[in-house]
Order: sequence, then structure tokens, then C-alpha cells
Amino acid sequence: MPEPPGLPEPLPEPALHDLRLEVVLGALSDPLRLRIVRKLLLERERFDHPCGWFGLDRPKSSLSHHFKALREAGIIRQRQYGLERRSHVRTADLEARFPGLLDLVAAWTPAR
Amino acid sequence: MPEPPGLPEPLPEPALHDLRLEVVLGALSDPLRLRIVRKLLLERERFDHPCGWFGLDRPKSSLSHHFKALREAGIIRQRQYGLERRSHVRTADLEARFPGLLDLVAAWTPAR
Repeated sequence: MPEPPGLPEPLPEPALHDLRLEVVLGALSDPLRLRIVRKLLLERERFDHPCGWFGLDRPKSSLSHHFKALREAGIIRQRQYGLERRSHVRTADLEARFPGLLDLVAAWTPAR
Repeated sequence: MPEPPGLPEPLPEPALHDLRLEVVLGALSDPLRLRIVRKLLLERERFDHPCGWFGLDRPKSSLSHHFKALREAGIIRQRQYGLERRSHVRTADLEARFPGLLDLVAAWTPAR
């Protein structure tokens, strides 16, 4: 999905060449975060998605922490839309640096 | 490399169908562990390798902890040879469950 014009600036994030495999793997080593990234990859409906779209039954402060961890690792890009932060996956950057990693996330299923 | 006959039994480890992406990624989210797995993938000289082969300048207790974490996540198989534990990567199992993941580990380089 191409970037629509006139978006807010992204929140602080690592540049492409600063992405580190150990950091990205650490940020993804959590079922809730895998679920967030997987839903963004497979069920995307628009460019950026707010927290509420994910339908996660967790306190907002906990969700904010997880989204921030994903952003600081370089997995998602977040933008501030008024009071709301919305996210998308940095698909091109991750494919360039860690080819195939997002396929593993897309194929992941929660433990029974 | 095919498994030579007459090896000791493997130490306890998760079965192929019990490997979990979140656990494997967590176990790999550490530069020392990436270095261990990468060296096993790229510089293998025999079937199983003892701790000393890796040339890691860390206390033995710390190394034991890291090797155990890799085994319990299903990334390496460990066997007890007398007083020594030796390891190899569960390449076929990991390729079957998480195709491409070991390529990312092999391509990893430590941060400068």
C-alpha cells in the first residue's frame, strides 16, 4: 500500500541501516506482539491502524508499551493523529534487511 | 552432516511439533547466542562441538546457561560425552518449522 500524502511525521524510530537482528527478534518474542504484527500483515484495511482496531483485551497502557517496543525495534512505524497513534509494519525495510522474517510472522499461530 | 552411529542420547529438548516461534526468537535475541549458532552453521568441523571450540571469553557457568537456553528453545541439540557437553544445530527441524530463519542467523554480523 503506497504512502498517502499529507501524513503526520513518524515518531522516532531506527533508520534502516540501524536495524539489528537481535533487537528485532527480541521484540517479536512475545505472542501478543506476533499477533499485532501478523494482523497488520494479513488484515490490513488502510494505511495506518489505531490500537483499537486490533481488538486486544489488554489495558491501554500495556498495549502502548508493546507498540512502542515494536516501533523502537524498527518493526512498525507509528504516527500521531490528534490523540491517537496509528501504526503500520515497515515491510519494505524488514524485507530488505531480514528477508523472510515477516513470512514467519505471517505463518505464526498462537499456542493452543 | 549425517548423524554418526553410537552417539549418546540427546539431552531433553522440545519435539519438532512443540517448537514455538516466540520461544525460538526469544532465545536468539542475544548477540552471544547468535554468535554461537552462526559459528555452528558456518564453521562446523565435526558432528558435535564442545563449548571450548567456540573460543568465547565468558565464564563457563554463563556459557552453560546460554547453551541450555538454546537447547530448551529447540535450536541446538546437546549430548553428554563424559564430562563434556557438545552441541549441533537442529538444522532440519528449524528449516521445516521456520524456513529461512537460519539464513538470517548465518547472515548476522555483530554490531560495531
